Amino acid sequence: MSTLTRLQEPQFSPHTLNKFATLMTAGNGYLGLRACHEEAYTDQTRGMYLAGFYHRSSPLETTELVNLPDILQMRIELDGEIFTLLAGQVVEYQRELDFATGELRRNVLWLAPNGKRYRIECQRFLSAAQHSLVCSRIAITPLDSEATVTISTGIDATQTNSGRQHLDETSVRVFEQRYLQGCYRTLDGSNEVIISSYCALPSESHSSFYAKNRRLTQHCSGLVAQGEAFSLVKTSWIASSLDENYRAETCAEFALQNLMQCVECGYEQLLAQSAQVWNGYWQRSRVKLESVNEEDQIALDFALYHLYAMTPVHNERCSIAAKGLTGEGYKGHVFWDTEVFLLPFHLMTQPHIARQLLSYRWHNLRGGQKKARENGWQGALFPWESAWTGEEETPEFAAINIRTGLRQKVASALAEHHLVADIAWAVDAYYQVTADEVFMRERGVTLLLETARFWISRAVNVNGRLELHDVIGPDEYTEHVDNNAYTNYLAFHNVERARHYVQQFGIQNAAFVSAADDFLERLWLPPANEQNLIAQDDTFFSKPTIDLTRYKQQQGTQAILLDYSRAEVNEMQILKQADVVMLTYMLPWRFTAEQLEANLGYYEPRTIHDSSLSKAIHGVIAARCYRVTQAYEFWQQAGLIDLGDDPHSCDDGIHAAATGAIWLGAVQGFVGLTVEQGELHLNPRMPAQWQSVALPFFWQGTQIHLMLTHQHVTISGAQNTPLTLWLGGKHVSFVGTQTFLLAEFFAPVNGSGTTKGTKQ
Amino acid sequence: MSTLTRLQEPQFSPHTLNKFATLMTAGNGYLGLRACHEEAYTDQTRGMYLAGFYHRSSPLETTELVNLPDILQMRIELDGEIFTLLAGQVVEYQRELDFATGELRRNVLWLAPNGKRYRIECQRFLSAAQHSLVCSRIAITPLDSEATVTISTGIDATQTNSGRQHLDETSVRVFEQRYLQGCYRTLDGSNEVIISSYCALPSESHSSFYAKNRRLTQHCSGLVAQGEAFSLVKTSWIASSLDENYRAETCAEFALQNLMQCVECGYEQLLAQSAQVWNGYWQRSRVKLESVNEEDQIALDFALYHLYAMTPVHNERCSIAAKGLTGEGYKGHVFWDTEVFLLPFHLMTQPHIARQLLSYRWHNLRGGQKKARENGWQGALFPWESAWTGEEETPEFAAINIRTGLRQKVASALAEHHLVADIAWAVDAYYQVTADEVFMRERGVTLLLETARFWISRAVNVNGRLELHDVIGPDEYTEHVDNNAYTNYLAFHNVERARHYVQQFGIQNAAFVSAADDFLERLWLPPANEQNLIAQDDTFFSKPTIDLTRYKQQQGTQAILLDYSRAEVNEMQILKQADVVMLTYMLPWRFTAEQLEANLGYYEPRTIHDSSLSKAIHGVIAARCYRVTQAYEFWQQAGLIDLGDDPHSCDDGIHAAATGAIWLGAVQGFVGLTVEQGELHLNPRMPAQWQSVALPFFWQGTQIHLMLTHQHVTISGAQNTPLTLWLGGKHVSFVGTQTFLLAEFFAPVNGSGTTKGTKQ
Repeated sequence: MSTLTRLQEPQFSPHTLNKFATLMTAGNGYLGLRACHEEAYTDQTRGMYLAGFYHRSSPLETTELVNLPDILQMRIELDGEIFTLLAGQVVEYQRELDFATGELRRNVLWLAPNGKRYRIECQRFLSAAQHSLVCSRIAITPLDSEATVTISTGIDATQTNSGRQHLDETSVRVFEQRYLQGCYRTLDGSNEVIISSYCALPSESHSSFYAKNRRLTQHCSGLVAQGEAFSLVKTSWIASSLDENYRAETCAEFALQNLMQCVECGYEQLLAQSAQVWNGYWQRSRVKLESVNEEDQIALDFALYHLYAMTPVHNERCSIAAKGLTGEGYKGHVFWDTEVFLLPFHLMTQPHIARQLLSYRWHNLRGGQKKARENGWQGALFPWESAWTGEEETPEFAAINIRTGLRQKVASALAEHHLVADIAWAVDAYYQVTADEVFMRERGVTLLLETARFWISRAVNVNGRLELHDVIGPDEYTEHVDNNAYTNYLAFHNVERARHYVQQFGIQNAAFVSAADDFLERLWLPPANEQNLIAQDDTFFSKPTIDLTRYKQQQGTQAILLDYSRAEVNEMQILKQADVVMLTYMLPWRFTAEQLEANLGYYEPRTIHDSSLSKAIHGVIAARCYRVTQAYEFWQQAGLIDLGDDPHSCDDGIHAAATGAIWLGAVQGFVGLTVEQGELHLNPRMPAQWQSVALPFFWQGTQIHLMLTHQHVTISGAQNTPLTLWLGGKHVSFVGTQTFLLAEFFAPVNGSGTTKGTKQ
Repeated sequence: MSTLTRLQEPQFSPHTLNKFATLMTAGNGYLGLRACHEEAYTDQTRGMYLAGFYHRSSPLETTELVNLPDILQMRIELDGEIFTLLAGQVVEYQRELDFATGELRRNVLWLAPNGKRYRIECQRFLSAAQHSLVCSRIAITPLDSEATVTISTGIDATQTNSGRQHLDETSVRVFEQRYLQGCYRTLDGSNEVIISSYCALPSESHSSFYAKNRRLTQHCSGLVAQGEAFSLVKTSWIASSLDENYRAETCAEFALQNLMQCVECGYEQLLAQSAQVWNGYWQRSRVKLESVNEEDQIALDFALYHLYAMTPVHNERCSIAAKGLTGEGYKGHVFWDTEVFLLPFHLMTQPHIARQLLSYRWHNLRGGQKKARENGWQGALFPWESAWTGEEETPEFAAINIRTGLRQKVASALAEHHLVADIAWAVDAYYQVTADEVFMRERGVTLLLETARFWISRAVNVNGRLELHDVIGPDEYTEHVDNNAYTNYLAFHNVERARHYVQQFGIQNAAFVSAADDFLERLWLPPANEQNLIAQDDTFFSKPTIDLTRYKQQQGTQAILLDYSRAEVNEMQILKQADVVMLTYMLPWRFTAEQLEANLGYYEPRTIHDSSLSKAIHGVIAARCYRVTQAYEFWQQAGLIDLGDDPHSCDDGIHAAATGAIWLGAVQGFVGLTVEQGELHLNPRMPAQWQSVALPFFWQGTQIHLMLTHQHVTISGAQNTPLTLWLGGKHVSFVGTQTFLLAEFFAPVNGSGTTKGTKQ
């Protein structure tokens, strides 16, 4: 995997501390550890987050992912000078995140205000092999004379989420004059986190320990000769009451034992163990490009790095937050992003993770059932924002309007119900790729049934026709409308799939089948008009349009809301993000090529792309419409949502869904690999900038490798049973490795520089 | 008052950020505002504290003075460079606190990393005229070219007390696109604070406002010509539910109106109003020296500045915390420090403040009665640490021992009962100076009676003798002893005074009088032995001694506890602070000159002075023993407790009692002005380094001025009734101004360079 790219920070800048702290976050699904520097900066938000470890600091606040006590900060004094890159001169600076191993490395040559030069080398990683393990190493070499080095580090529980306190310090200890341990409990008493640390130091150094004001600190100092390195290796073990084998009485002791065992191994061996796990991951999932633009590969590696880092595979009671484990944005809550933007990647590379993400919803069915019941509906209305309990975590009211003092009810939790169907869509997708009957029998069909029952109860009868009123589709700039096309089509799909699997798995539920049949027969599915256009909702086409150029130029900032109220925006043809276009992405087999083309052409100019979820989906649809140049532009722009130049766009965490969308754009868009109604389809429309794409994927229990150029596609994997797929309009079936000449399957597409299947 | 000194910070250093933030704290008794820089530094603890505004963040924590939302911080960018004195070069730096007006001024010439020079001038004050008012001004002048200045400032409620959250943000508003207001409620719902701010800006600048993550921020930017100043004046109004006229419905509106009125006045006028109040204070209280050491005057001005700043004269339900309003040390709790070390200054300069401090105890009698009752005693056992309710706030257990994991019960709250008698001592002192019969009838006698009843119930009968067992005296290195001399003598004084005033005010309480008579007759008062020594307690003289030289060299650090356990220290003749010496200070008329001398000589070598309360009292006694050189050394060292070179000794707040002790040392020690049994005594023993001392004081309703040299003392004030005092051993009485030749009253003291009264 030596070809894996690295994410490099071009220079030290106080303006981009949080951007790179986010981008370079270490993660293993269990923990996320922001890439803050060892030395503190006032503008730098330190953060360590544990999947599922939520708490609510007061009734006026929202449940949020707890910012745990800090273990990485070090107060460093070199000959009495406090080490900070703001002072003195940064002669050399390199920092890079190695995607191959997850190791973050920094190498600084610092000319201190005292006129002396010091080399400071830092390394750290969060283990992929033992998810509680964090290792960091710092080596300080005085270049001009011997030096006195003092480092204060420990476990710092003064951390808050922007001033909101979540933890009580229940115990701080130093064992054997070496091992630090702090135990912390959420203020509501529901959870505990135990943090243990050990610092390996030069033998001639001196240490003292103290605990004060929620800080347990080891103060280390030593004299180091010119040209020699003063090295400190800090090994930490983070355990919590959410752990599988947690027992309150023994947890602290076990944590200490685990830490001691890790300390025995040493940094290099622990890193090697972790790198091995990463290597397996890249083998199973990496999309390898030959592109004239090297940032394309970086974007893909970046996306897949974070797709690993954010996914809590260890616990099916956790799911993926909108910012993963990289920051406090969206409070660590789970949205529809997970099922629609993130799950497909896992499903096609490690399907058991997709199963686990769906299980998170299954475990939380009760919360969805409660919300449905409380609103007078049946089945399960999953919460718009979900955390640990599965109950609705969306704040009831939005942040105060600082000019009027009013708080608005948050509309998404009230009416953005499409996520119910999105979850069902993902359940169906899961079965199509895996044919996992056990999951379907135990959990999947239940999810489908309960979500379907919600829709059946939610529909209203308008002169015999069933309609879905007062909803919000994916486009959140158009609220409280009737018959949002996305919602209606997805709800239909939901009920249809539920009815299908009920039959397939022989479940006796005549009442449901009958109700479903009635729903499917009578639900209004807004049809395409003569221009092949599908109305976003009942009133959309009747609304005026305005010139959006200015707002599109500032996309992602919601600048429109500075000029117009939400109510005004609602009454115009203005989209925040893909809606009908999103629908054509989700259920492609329901729409003709002409419909895709027409709706993309109509809606895109009306879409500001203020949501990070928008661009990549437009890219996929543009690719499916053989507008490959435009698709590539969309895809590249989607890749810049986090990696672009904006110094603050991801201060509070990456756009997790956008990482999934980078993969979707490449695989579903350009490679054209999709699953439709249980069958594998391949319709390549590779951009001219790419020479080849190679990728592994999983299909019904078999690991497949695909290698695509503009001329050929080589597919290998199926050893026993034949692999069957649609190549363009042709059904092919083979065993082992097979290379196909694309020209035999696809006709050139005029002006697009690509080819088109003889049947779409 | 142009002769008032200023406290100057010699240079900018990241090592002393908190030292000077503490020393230069602005205060008006209502608010304390740490002298943090506008720009943030990671090591700098920002703090604003409101007297009496306490809260407990969780049952595992202690009630503490809440660190309020910050109003002073400004994020400043100059041509895109983030302003911080760590970066670039600090070409010029001056910062000074003007004791005359309480104004803090900073003047910096900064060479930014971009190579351009900027002058940054900051001023701020907390109004002494309107205690809710905070004004700050910043002027930024680019010296080398025009500049873009951006300043972000507002109300920042991410502040915590070391990670402990106390406030909910209940509302953030911007009125008229100009006025910011944040309302915050303690998590327990008991208190509210309303912070309103306005920034006056150059007319051509641009502002925007936003609220996020507990921060309400105004973002200001403008272009400023070379050599011109970009000036921002921020006016803030802090109101709380503790305010006298607080009404929940109207408080926010009133606060805004008050702010608007202040804004109308402008910085200079508001400063002048405040300076006028300060001027009156200095007139009433300043001790003016001629000394060869100019730091002596600074120490006195510093002390008196803080004595004003820390004292909540606006509300008799508040008292003075151990760190005043300058930091979070001791959680903002009130100790015996207030009555013994701080009250005497107020009593002799503004007696109504002394009355108010005693009223704080009177209001809190119920807490003391509760504690006595819960421990099986009668009367009032005031809490060792007191906050708002008057109940015991001392944590039940000390901080965890990080090596053993054990927590010890905090002994002071269990047995350090002398504070009960200290409060009574202060009540008596108050009446002696003021003859305030109204206070005594309404509150004073009740305090004396309830404290006396405690002692009577607490004494145990040992073969007919009454003893006080299992106590801790002021010397906290000697715990759980019987018949601590300080405690027994003070308890006797307490009961005796109670009995006296009961009689004087004709209160019918035969049962008490009889019990008091019995107590006074039988209470064991450890007598001086043949060497004139009084045993600190029953067993003290039987304990071994060790060489304390090393620990005395590190005094203030409790270094002895690194070598010996508390239990071991307890079994040796080791004092943390004055104990018998303290006793001779408190009740001087009970002891002969020989006894003072002998006990000072015996105990001082056994005293490490690990408490800030120790040195100054030793200084007073040394002066009374005519060891003036030693007294001056003690006094100067006491002045260095906060002002000395230690960069961290006052990081978490000044030693409030030490400021009172600086005044005590000068006035009671060197000037020798004391009140003993209702009479004024003057026994000057001025150090050779001083040429003169001038001071005002209040005596039984009359303002007196005293001017002392080595030859003369001039006393003026009493216009109608004659002023009577003891000058050395002679009784003098006069009207108007009178100058006395000291040689007529005092004989020279051999080797001491001073004189001694013909009768002591």
